[in-house]
Amino acid sequence: MSVYTPVSESQLAEWLRNYSVGALRALEPVQAGIENTNYFVTTTQGRYVLTLFERLPAEELPFYLNLMAHLARHGVPSPAPIADLSDQYLSRLNGKPAALVTRLAGKSVERPGTRECAELGALLARMHLAGRSYPAYLENPRGPKWWRAAARAVREFLDAEAVALLDEELRFQSLYRFPDLPRGPVHADLFRDNALFDHGRISGVIDFYFAGTDCLLLDLAVCANDWCLVDPARDCGLDQTRTQALLGAYAALRPFVALERGAWPVLLRAAALRFWLSRLYDLHLPRPGVLVHAHDPGQFRDILARRAGAAELPWVT
Amino acid sequence: MSVYTPVSESQLAEWLRNYSVGALRALEPVQAGIENTNYFVTTTQGRYVLTLFERLPAEELPFYLNLMAHLARHGVPSPAPIADLSDQYLSRLNGKPAALVTRLAGKSVERPGTRECAELGALLARMHLAGRSYPAYLENPRGPKWWRAAARAVREFLDAEAVALLDEELRFQSLYRFPDLPRGPVHADLFRDNALFDHGRISGVIDFYFAGTDCLLLDLAVCANDWCLVDPARDCGLDQTRTQALLGAYAALRPFVALERGAWPVLLRAAALRFWLSRLYDLHLPRPGVLVHAHDPGQFRDILARRAGAAELPWVT
Repeated sequence: MSVYTPVSESQLAEWLRNYSVGALRALEPVQAGIENTNYFVTTTQGRYVLTLFERLPAEELPFYLNLMAHLARHGVPSPAPIADLSDQYLSRLNGKPAALVTRLAGKSVERPGTRECAELGALLARMHLAGRSYPAYLENPRGPKWWRAAARAVREFLDAEAVALLDEELRFQSLYRFPDLPRGPVHADLFRDNALFDHGRISGVIDFYFAGTDCLLLDLAVCANDWCLVDPARDCGLDQTRTQALLGAYAALRPFVALERGAWPVLLRAAALRFWLSRLYDLHLPRPGVLVHAHDPGQFRDILARRAGAAELPWVT
Repeated sequence: MSVYTPVSESQLAEWLRNYSVGALRALEPVQAGIENTNYFVTTTQGRYVLTLFERLPAEELPFYLNLMAHLARHGVPSPAPIADLSDQYLSRLNGKPAALVTRLAGKSVERPGTRECAELGALLARMHLAGRSYPAYLENPRGPKWWRAAARAVREFLDAEAVALLDEELRFQSLYRFPDLPRGPVHADLFRDNALFDHGRISGVIDFYFAGTDCLLLDLAVCANDWCLVDPARDCGLDQTRTQALLGAYAALRPFVALERGAWPVLLRAAALRFWLSRLYDLHLPRPGVLVHAHDPGQFRDILARRAGAAELPWVT
């Protein structure tokens, strides 16, 4: 589904001569993912993921690749970009910007429990602590500016009730910008399928191509809205135990500041709004040539409405 | 044997709070090695080696750590130093410079065959190609200047025949300096116990603390004098098949220049001289407090005499 730019074994073998990773043994297209072309690559040295960037602005790619390299060399299990013989992470292959990164072991967990949520919380804290020394800046590309543009683009496809919810949320969010919250590089898309587990331990965080600089708490809000639902299919309320496991394990390594307590309900709504909008966009305005099954925007509309109407939302005790 | 500076679990747990590698689960002293204090460290995130530097000049440490980081991010299986929360590879623990590096899987091979020698040759070539973009320079600390100083220090312990061999070799080597050979960072100590294999593939190259800038061919000479002996216990001639496997696999990735053919017999002798001298030094002038079993210098005296007297030495065909 997601192979927009085919790569043959002989093309790749030739391209790999500019790397120090040994000889090509296997090449396998990755079907998941909608943004880039990905291949699993096995060489005599190891297992890698080859990514050909189809959508991202070329000037943003160094932010993502250098962030992954920064986190990896701090011990955070993110894919490590491999530098080529010119000492560059970013190269070109078949006319597209391309990069080779390490392939991490493990599998994603469809129904995370308390333990997985605690693992995730601790990982996020370590990622945010390591990210403090990351020098580059990229405004979250799915932040407030993008919300407003996306809202203009999709509103014609919405019923009156949805338009009202959207407009009210944009108004509500515009009242809060939290310039004083702890900020730094955030993953911003750490759904269950972007975390790998091995023997009960988190062994990988992948797909940093929606990362940017934003409130650190946003990562927790994105995660809570996916990992901590009472029942993803039927009840999008936040499960108290798993949410507290996520937040508690995080706070044990990076204690929250007082302001973050107040910001939590707002960021849960902001995170829901962002994914409601992107799913609406992908459904109603798909890019040409993208044949992927679009996610149902309805779930995030429900999450947003539920968070907006909640009298109280779980916080670390 | 090699723990000069003890580290307790509570000291390490505290120290690791400045890293993003998770919580300490196990700490185990490493008995091998004579130069530094090493511990195997297991955290919730992974397996690492903690090194406290006992001998090396502090100003040289960045050369080694940055070289390992450079090679690792090029895909060469060298230990990857972990940066702390201040973004530094080098820290201090119990009064010593200290670093945490990834622990690689695999085991060293005592009796390498043709296949292992070919694996090693290919690895060396990839390491040298990746090393070309490494910007730092450190003159090989066990180069000609050191030979002369070490020879002065140990000659009083040698019999007349050994003194004659040593003086003749120093004279011979002084005729050759090969400024035009391909040069770059070399490991310079890649004995069998510094390479790890996993399922028949080389999975790690460790202990870069004798690395420096020198002729690339020196790495092959050091390796041939250890990996390619006909029989380490009885016959220090070079086994033709294994030597050719080493050189051939290397040359397939980094073809030799014509000058290297001529330099090969000289560098085999230089590599033998360097280890004969260091073993003499460690035997007769051990550092105080070092209780390690010194290697027998006799083997490298034999290797040197044998190489010096050889009419012909194996080269890639």
